[in-house]
Amino acid sequence: MAFRVGVIGGGQLARMMIEPALALGLEIKVFAENSGSSAAMAVTRIGDYTQIAEVREFAASVDVITFDHEHVPLSVLETLEQEGFSIQPSPKALKFAQNKLHMRRRLSELGLPMPAWAEIKSANELDSFIEENGGVAILKTPIGGYDGKGVAVVRSAADATEWLENLDAFGGSLLAEAKVDFVRELAQLVARRTSGELRAWPLVQTVQRSGVCSEVLVPAPESSESTRQAAIEIAETVAKSLGVTGVLAVELFETTDGRLLINELAMRPHNSGHFSIEGSVTSQFEQHLRAVLDLPLGATESVAAHSVMINLLGVDDENDFVSEYPLALAAFPSAKFHTYGKTARQGRKMGHVTVIGSSFEAVLKEARAAANSCLMV
Amino acid sequence: MAFRVGVIGGGQLARMMIEPALALGLEIKVFAENSGSSAAMAVTRIGDYTQIAEVREFAASVDVITFDHEHVPLSVLETLEQEGFSIQPSPKALKFAQNKLHMRRRLSELGLPMPAWAEIKSANELDSFIEENGGVAILKTPIGGYDGKGVAVVRSAADATEWLENLDAFGGSLLAEAKVDFVRELAQLVARRTSGELRAWPLVQTVQRSGVCSEVLVPAPESSESTRQAAIEIAETVAKSLGVTGVLAVELFETTDGRLLINELAMRPHNSGHFSIEGSVTSQFEQHLRAVLDLPLGATESVAAHSVMINLLGVDDENDFVSEYPLALAAFPSAKFHTYGKTARQGRKMGHVTVIGSSFEAVLKEARAAANSCLMV
Repeated sequence: MAFRVGVIGGGQLARMMIEPALALGLEIKVFAENSGSSAAMAVTRIGDYTQIAEVREFAASVDVITFDHEHVPLSVLETLEQEGFSIQPSPKALKFAQNKLHMRRRLSELGLPMPAWAEIKSANELDSFIEENGGVAILKTPIGGYDGKGVAVVRSAADATEWLENLDAFGGSLLAEAKVDFVRELAQLVARRTSGELRAWPLVQTVQRSGVCSEVLVPAPESSESTRQAAIEIAETVAKSLGVTGVLAVELFETTDGRLLINELAMRPHNSGHFSIEGSVTSQFEQHLRAVLDLPLGATESVAAHSVMINLLGVDDENDFVSEYPLALAAFPSAKFHTYGKTARQGRKMGHVTVIGSSFEAVLKEARAAANSCLMV
Repeated sequence: MAFRVGVIGGGQLARMMIEPALALGLEIKVFAENSGSSAAMAVTRIGDYTQIAEVREFAASVDVITFDHEHVPLSVLETLEQEGFSIQPSPKALKFAQNKLHMRRRLSELGLPMPAWAEIKSANELDSFIEENGGVAILKTPIGGYDGKGVAVVRSAADATEWLENLDAFGGSLLAEAKVDFVRELAQLVARRTSGELRAWPLVQTVQRSGVCSEVLVPAPESSESTRQAAIEIAETVAKSLGVTGVLAVELFETTDGRLLINELAMRPHNSGHFSIEGSVTSQFEQHLRAVLDLPLGATESVAAHSVMINLLGVDDENDFVSEYPLALAAFPSAKFHTYGKTARQGRKMGHVTVIGSSFEAVLKEARAAANSCLMV
């Protein structure tokens, strides 16, 4: 007997799924865009994921299709699902991760907490929204934004002329959100099996720099029991109501008055869950495979009291971090370094480092020092 | 920059090296005998490891050659080393793991503790040895034995007629060892980097059934500080004196009077170290890669107070254990199941399961129950 999973996209998320697939003896195949991808070792097809014929052939070689990214056209997935292929998460759920306007509309119907928002089809609508929301708005393209791309802080429609003049490129409208007065950003990861079983990891704090995740602190320091419960309830409601399968990451703002507001959703393993490789009994990558194959989920308890994960972001076109191992590994024998096999480029997510332990202060200090030790060029 | 390691042999040890290679971003290539091996995902060459031309071509594609098994002819490795290839461990060390007579001779020179032994070239020599050692001997073929194969308990030369009549097949002699009155079997794992750095894992107890490792208990229950120190000293002496690089496993007998005697050596990741994937900050597989590439070694501290690893041995030609996941994973969400992608066969090492935790009794009970849950057919 074999459980065969096909992953569309050959990035670091697919790469990190290979490890638990090997451990559990599950078959994993990756559909990548190019040779030399992060997940190259498991690539069985190189092609264009927008071409249904190519995706269909790939899907026929596995039991279930899942994803490393959210860019496969919904129409392709809907057709394949109608043809009987198992797509996890289903396009019925994925459309809310692919399109932020769909997401806001659906979460509003569910009465879930989030920033004030509006669909924007004109400069007038945007100026009205800005006026109603304290003179500033976060303007987002509904589709395709990530890591700070497709997001702009605007104080008047004049700040968004280029987007407003090309509305057709964004499906006819933009998403405006109120700028939230938040204390910090949190993320709640859950996994949901196709047959319904749910498991949640501890609430984490994410620290962003220039719109990119920099550090993840586990569990989120000094969070109250009620905050932790609220976060799990929000994530479980989203997972169930939207029919998410696999890992769901709910990015949250914690406001000055202690409320949680939903920022973004991701329906796949997420940067805020990389800590779980060492920090949890079951990593998000193993759990994602279990969930999309409808295998029973693993325990999500932490292995240590604290985990800190720090991203290794490219500093230039030279430093691939692997070259820094002779010094970095010597100085930090307890730090777990991960690199993704990518060509170096400034700002690129090249890898990450995780430290686990019993003292938050010690773990944070060691993780930061270990990450810094790789940055020398 | 890249660190490229080539592994000869496509078994489960090579398979489990793939995971840390991916994590650390090291390149791994595997030379396998057949397609469909456990390490198939990283296989770049299928061939015959006794043919020097084939091994040479493979060696030219990596920075260092290491091993999944101990069967590559020493002459092949010696020639390649003379030609300038990096073979880790070196054939100078490997010969002591490949040939148990060489091993006993060298360890005797070093004054290390072990059972009484003799080289046997005739029935008379064997009968004398048996008479001097309480009427029984453990007779071993010097080369090629593993998991209880190549080992016989004999009470007279008449019990070994077939081997004694075919001495040439074993290089002209056999190894006789006194039967040790032991309380239990232990194993001490260490890793040694080519430039000398050494790290030791905690002393473990191994439980054998029918000559095959069944359970590994970490740390070895109720072992005294002096026993633990003695084990590390023995293993470090062996590693240094024999020039071992990579992981070295020293299998030990603990006698009724508390002495440690060396049973066997393995110069590669070893079944007694599989627990380290979840149980240690650095697994034996990650450490082996670091060591043979001369990268700094990782911390070997335990992640939890106790780990128990239980082998999943094939029960018949049908049960590949993966088929049992729907029930086994549901019943044991904290157990870490590993399967090696092998065709089912009775007695074959098909996989293993590890449980870690704070209570030895609870961990042992859960690991045994989890392993048993996979055995239903």
